[in-house]
Amino acid sequence: MKALTNRIRDRRLAQLLEPVDVGMEQMRACVSSELASDHPAVSEMTEHLGSFRGKQLRAALVLLAARAAGNDHPELPQVASVIEMIHLATLVHDDVLDGAEVRRRVACVNQRWDNQVAVLLGDLLYARAFHLSTTLCSPMVSEILSRATQRICEGEIIQAGSRRAFEMDVEQYEYIAAAKTATLYRAACELGAAYPAADNPEQVEALACFGEEVGLAFQIVDDVLDLVGDQEAVGKSVGNDVEDGKVTLPVLTTYASADESVRTAIRAAYGDEFSGDRRVALRSACNLDAGVDRAMGRARDLVAQANKRLNCLDASPSKAALSMLGDYVLERKW
Amino acid sequence: MKALTNRIRDRRLAQLLEPVDVGMEQMRACVSSELASDHPAVSEMTEHLGSFRGKQLRAALVLLAARAAGNDHPELPQVASVIEMIHLATLVHDDVLDGAEVRRRVACVNQRWDNQVAVLLGDLLYARAFHLSTTLCSPMVSEILSRATQRICEGEIIQAGSRRAFEMDVEQYEYIAAAKTATLYRAACELGAAYPAADNPEQVEALACFGEEVGLAFQIVDDVLDLVGDQEAVGKSVGNDVEDGKVTLPVLTTYASADESVRTAIRAAYGDEFSGDRRVALRSACNLDAGVDRAMGRARDLVAQANKRLNCLDASPSKAALSMLGDYVLERKW
Repeated sequence: MKALTNRIRDRRLAQLLEPVDVGMEQMRACVSSELASDHPAVSEMTEHLGSFRGKQLRAALVLLAARAAGNDHPELPQVASVIEMIHLATLVHDDVLDGAEVRRRVACVNQRWDNQVAVLLGDLLYARAFHLSTTLCSPMVSEILSRATQRICEGEIIQAGSRRAFEMDVEQYEYIAAAKTATLYRAACELGAAYPAADNPEQVEALACFGEEVGLAFQIVDDVLDLVGDQEAVGKSVGNDVEDGKVTLPVLTTYASADESVRTAIRAAYGDEFSGDRRVALRSACNLDAGVDRAMGRARDLVAQANKRLNCLDASPSKAALSMLGDYVLERKW
Repeated sequence: MKALTNRIRDRRLAQLLEPVDVGMEQMRACVSSELASDHPAVSEMTEHLGSFRGKQLRAALVLLAARAAGNDHPELPQVASVIEMIHLATLVHDDVLDGAEVRRRVACVNQRWDNQVAVLLGDLLYARAFHLSTTLCSPMVSEILSRATQRICEGEIIQAGSRRAFEMDVEQYEYIAAAKTATLYRAACELGAAYPAADNPEQVEALACFGEEVGLAFQIVDDVLDLVGDQEAVGKSVGNDVEDGKVTLPVLTTYASADESVRTAIRAAYGDEFSGDRRVALRSACNLDAGVDRAMGRARDLVAQANKRLNCLDASPSKAALSMLGDYVLERKW
């Protein structure tokens, strides 16, 4: 049943991306050739990366935003490749940070090899992505993506300093979530609309905000899935956030409105002394339903707000696809 | 006594770098301002990095090579800053990979905080370095350094796949050592001579080769110090290579000429079952003196070869400093 639902969802996504089929194919060919290596030790690893290719939503956003804004620059598939490679680099390092085991039903690099090699492979991916960006006709990609990467790292560092921060406010949670995830969504839409030079700043800004809001919604849904999702359906390790002391939106709001005895039980499920399934402990400590509903409500609001940004664009299949992508993010279970 | 010798050596280096004093000061100011952050969690870490600043040899090479080649472009201190920041990024990640504890007498980032944060901080440094390179007038720095970073990572990945590779030949050892370390020395000299555009390809190539050879010599000496150096004098953790299964030049050549019983004892000192001081075990397994002498001989040959590269340059204080730097690398104990 889960497999069927996933297949239906996959088919729907494929339909959404039809307007940019050709560009996506060029992007995939470009990433493959960028990841090739003469060194067997390196190519064995980069080939493994192919197995958790995923939906390549960020690359699709570059191409859809470009189409929707009437931009058909021939280097756009390479721009999308750079974004996809930076995303891959962050995934490989994230899996080290989270001690994750499975990504998209395949063993993570840190599991298949080890943490050392995963750190190096992530560094290599960053370097290749930046190198590819320096071969393009405009320095815009290098500029925007080196700045974006800084914001991602800062967000992750602040998050690492906020473990078990149950008193954190919602703004701080969203600041971290946006830095971590919305940054690349924003950059994808901005570059798609603007590359190689922003002729229509209003449209570029609208699409950048669209990316930021959809990206934040994506991270909120991701956090909900890690908290209450099923590993088999999600296709990657779940429960990492509780394990790692990350207090995500549903827990944050549940904790804020809980009485002291419930708070103590929530803290215990995150505590050093705890051993066992932390998600089970958390669920018996409190009722997360209202927190999950509030988080999903916030994600829905963000997607609605994002869709309004598209009003400045002329009607097109790509504009329609962008506005449907938000719903896809809300409904995803992977 | 050791402290005195180090002080004498420090003073000698300071004299060597006198021709580029002003540029080095500008480089340091540039790196400091690039590492500043509004986020306390981030700035606390970047400030800590200031405490293991080191000799900044790579930055000095940019400025000395520029002077020696008659290049006085005003952006050279920023070029040197980009190299120094990439070097810092590799140090932070190296310390994670090596599980190192002390660098230049200060706790490593992975010890003071943890591995997760050290990975992120390294990523942030790479991103800031690349971003700084995109603000310069020529794309040369972005191009050369993104390619250089790839070579460094590939070298490290190949090294990670060569643990306890006692049968490795000297060429493969040097391939890895050069990729890891000579790459940035080469890039520093090449950029110093060529930035923002190579007008004199012969001189640029000569200085690039000078950097490559001095850099490889540096790594060979580094490996010797890790094997037989004293932690207090070296100022950073020693014995990491044996611990991590890295078979470096002195061990490699000792192993190659040893009989089977000595080989077995060497392998045991590197083995999984071993517990205790591996360097002590290795030294009782075999006499490393000849291997150390051979490695130091190779480093001396490389420096002599590097110095011949300088023949194409007119005499100048910077040319003289470059040729003395090689000797400094050979004599260093830190």
